[in-house]
Amino acid sequence: MSEVLATYLLTDTTDSEKRAEQIAAGLTVGSWTDLPLVKQEQLRKHKGRVVKVEEKEGTPENEKQAVITIAYPEANFSRDIPAVLTTVFGKLSLDGKIKLTDLEFSEGFKRSLPGPKFGIYGIRKLLGEFERPLLMSIFKGVIGRDLRDIKEQLRQQALGGVDLIKDDEIFFENELAPFETRIIEGKQVLKETREETGHKTLYAVNLTGRTAELRDKARRAAELGADALLLNVFAYGLDVMQSLAEDGEIPLPIMAHPAVSGAFTSSPVYGLSHALLLGKLNRYCGADFSLFPSPYGSVALPKESALAIHDECVKDDVFHPSFAVPSAGIHPGMVPFLMRDFGIDHIINAGGGVHGHPNGAEGGGKAFRAIIDAVLEAQPIEEKAASCKDLQLALDKWGRVEAV
Amino acid sequence: MSEVLATYLLTDTTDSEKRAEQIAAGLTVGSWTDLPLVKQEQLRKHKGRVVKVEEKEGTPENEKQAVITIAYPEANFSRDIPAVLTTVFGKLSLDGKIKLTDLEFSEGFKRSLPGPKFGIYGIRKLLGEFERPLLMSIFKGVIGRDLRDIKEQLRQQALGGVDLIKDDEIFFENELAPFETRIIEGKQVLKETREETGHKTLYAVNLTGRTAELRDKARRAAELGADALLLNVFAYGLDVMQSLAEDGEIPLPIMAHPAVSGAFTSSPVYGLSHALLLGKLNRYCGADFSLFPSPYGSVALPKESALAIHDECVKDDVFHPSFAVPSAGIHPGMVPFLMRDFGIDHIINAGGGVHGHPNGAEGGGKAFRAIIDAVLEAQPIEEKAASCKDLQLALDKWGRVEAV
Repeated sequence: MSEVLATYLLTDTTDSEKRAEQIAAGLTVGSWTDLPLVKQEQLRKHKGRVVKVEEKEGTPENEKQAVITIAYPEANFSRDIPAVLTTVFGKLSLDGKIKLTDLEFSEGFKRSLPGPKFGIYGIRKLLGEFERPLLMSIFKGVIGRDLRDIKEQLRQQALGGVDLIKDDEIFFENELAPFETRIIEGKQVLKETREETGHKTLYAVNLTGRTAELRDKARRAAELGADALLLNVFAYGLDVMQSLAEDGEIPLPIMAHPAVSGAFTSSPVYGLSHALLLGKLNRYCGADFSLFPSPYGSVALPKESALAIHDECVKDDVFHPSFAVPSAGIHPGMVPFLMRDFGIDHIINAGGGVHGHPNGAEGGGKAFRAIIDAVLEAQPIEEKAASCKDLQLALDKWGRVEAV
Repeated sequence: MSEVLATYLLTDTTDSEKRAEQIAAGLTVGSWTDLPLVKQEQLRKHKGRVVKVEEKEGTPENEKQAVITIAYPEANFSRDIPAVLTTVFGKLSLDGKIKLTDLEFSEGFKRSLPGPKFGIYGIRKLLGEFERPLLMSIFKGVIGRDLRDIKEQLRQQALGGVDLIKDDEIFFENELAPFETRIIEGKQVLKETREETGHKTLYAVNLTGRTAELRDKARRAAELGADALLLNVFAYGLDVMQSLAEDGEIPLPIMAHPAVSGAFTSSPVYGLSHALLLGKLNRYCGADFSLFPSPYGSVALPKESALAIHDECVKDDVFHPSFAVPSAGIHPGMVPFLMRDFGIDHIINAGGGVHGHPNGAEGGGKAFRAIIDAVLEAQPIEEKAASCKDLQLALDKWGRVEAV
C-alpha cells in the first residue's frame, strides 16, 4: 500500500503518542475505535498509521517537544500537491503548535511529479561551464527606469562575466519595459556582449500576472528567446510551477524565488520547514534553481536551515538535482565561505555586491569571478587581489567574512 | 497617485522609524539617498512612503514591538494579488520578526477584484431564508465509503433541517464516489428530502485536482446542478479562487476552506493576520463563505482573531458581505454564544455536533434548529428543550458552554 509520510514537530504537547494516534485516524477515516469491526475491515486500507513518536529536548521556554511521523494512504487523495498539503497539513495547520518538517513520497507518487527539467547538469550544459560555482547577478532598482537604463545595467553585468542575470522579483509588467520587449532587447544586448567577450550570459525574466495567463506568457517567453523564467512560486502555488515544469512547450529552466515563503517558514513552531518548502517541494515540483537567504548576508537564515535546503536540492533522488542559490547581501568576501559550505554545485548570487562595486557592475562581476578562481585554485586571496584590482577594491569596500 | 497600504507588526525591532524608511525605499526604488536629484525626481512617483510608525507595548518576552504602515505606489505592480503579495511581503516575509496585518487597496484596485458573486443576501435568496443564522453540516468520515453510505449521510443531514451540507475538505476525486456522480446523485437525494419536508438544502462539492483543471471542473459542477463549490484556497492560491469567482460560466457561490492557512496565520510575530487572510483577502478574491476555527471549539482561534475575521466579512465595503463560518467542535450548547458574538448573519457549522447526536444526524440538525429558534425568540433554553427532545438529548450529551 503506497503512503505519503509526513513528519511534524509538536511543541507544548502533553501526550504525543495519543496526539499522533488522533491525527492518524482523524485526518483519514475519522473516529476509529467507535466503528463496528466490519467497518474497520472495510476502512483499514484508508487509515493513517503512526510511524514514529520521539520526545525531544524542550524549547528554551521549556515547552515539551516531540517529532512524530504519520503515514497517510495514497488511496485517500489524488496525486496533486494541493491534495497532499490539504490532507497532511490542512486542518492540522490550525491546530496548535505544529510544524510540518518533512514529506516522503512513494516512488509512484514521485513519478507523477516533474522534478527539474534541466537540473544542475542541464544548466551547466547551457552555459558550457562545469567546474565552478556559477555567478548570478540581479537587476537593481529598475522600477520606473526605462528600457535604455535597463539595457545598460544588463550590459554592465554581462561584461563582468556573470553567468546568469535575473529580473528583480518585484519587477512586473510595465509600460517602460514590457515583458516581451525586455526579452527581445535584453537578448540582443547579451548577444553583443558575448561577441565582445566570448562569455555567455543567460537572462531569467520574471514571469508575472494572473495564474491563468502564465502558461501562454511562458511559451511566448521561450519563443522570444528568454533563457529562464523567474517565478514567485509562493505567491501562486506549487501546483502552478509544477504545470509550467511539465509543459513540453516551455523548454526553459525555472528559478523559484522565495518571496512570501517567509510567511510559512519563519516560525520555529508553526508552518513548514525551510528544507521541505524551499528544498524538496521546490525541486519535486520543477524548480531548476531555488533561491533562499544565505546564512551570511543581510537577510539571513539560520545556517542549519540553509544547509538543509541545499541538501534537499542535491541529494540522491529520482529527480535531477537543482541549484541552491543562497542570496541576499552577498559580496566577494563571502565567497570562500559559500564555497566551503555549498560546494562547487551552487550559484553565487549578488545584487549590491555586484552593482555597488567602485568600478560598477562590470568590476563587481570581475571581483566575484576572480575570488571564485582563487578559491578553486587554492590561491591565497591576498595574492589574487594583488593581480586583480577589481577584487582588491571589493575587499577594501566590503571586507572579508570571518568564519561563520 | 493610487497606492496600496500595508500594515505590519514589527517585533524585536530597534529603530522602527529607520526600518520603515528602509522598507519604503528598499521595496520600491531601491536605495534613495544615494541617487542624483534628477533621478529622484524621475522616480518619486514610484517610491514607497511611510504612513505611520507606532511603538507598542512589548511582547511577554519583552521584545519591543511597533506597528508601521507603508504606502506602495500602484504604478509599481500589476493589478493581481501575486504581484501585491510579492511587493509588500515578498522578500520582507523573510526578514526577521514581521507580520503583515492589513492591506488597504485603492478604489481602482478594488474595482479590478471580483468580491463574492452572491454574498450573504445572494445565498439567503437561494435558500429563501432571511432572518436567522444558517445551519451547515459536514460529511463525516467519508473516505473509503461508497456512494450508498454517502447518500444516506446526506439524507439524514438534510432531514434534520440543515441549510447547507459541505463535503469534507479531505475528500478528493475517488472511484467510490466520483465528483460528477456525487453531484448528480446527491442533488437527487436533496430533491427527495425537499419533497418530503419542504426544506431546501444546498450541497457544496469539494473542487479539487490540478489548478489547470479547476475551471472546467467547476463549470461542469454548475451544469450538473451543484449548489456551491468548496475550495481549499490556501492549497492553491488566492488568485486561483479569484479566477473562479470572475468566471461568468461558474454561477456558484464559493466556500473558502482554511486548510493550510494555519501555516501563514498561527504565529503571533510572522506571516499574515487571520483578519487579512481569512477575512479581507478571501472576501475581495471572491469567497462567499469563509470558514475558520471558532473561538469555542476543539480547534480554536483567539476570540479576538475570530471576531476580526467576521468583521472583515461583513464590514461596509464595495463588495457584497460574505458569510463568516466559525467552525470545528461546534455543538448546540454553543449556539447562544455564536449568535451573541457573530449575530444573525453568520453560519453555524457542525460536524460531530450533528452526526454524534443520539438520534443521528437528523436529530442533530433538529437540535441545532431548535436552539437557534429559541435564541431568536428569547425563549429560555430549558423551556425549548422541554418541548424538543432532540435539543434535550444534545444538551445532555454536550452540555452548554459557559460564558467565553
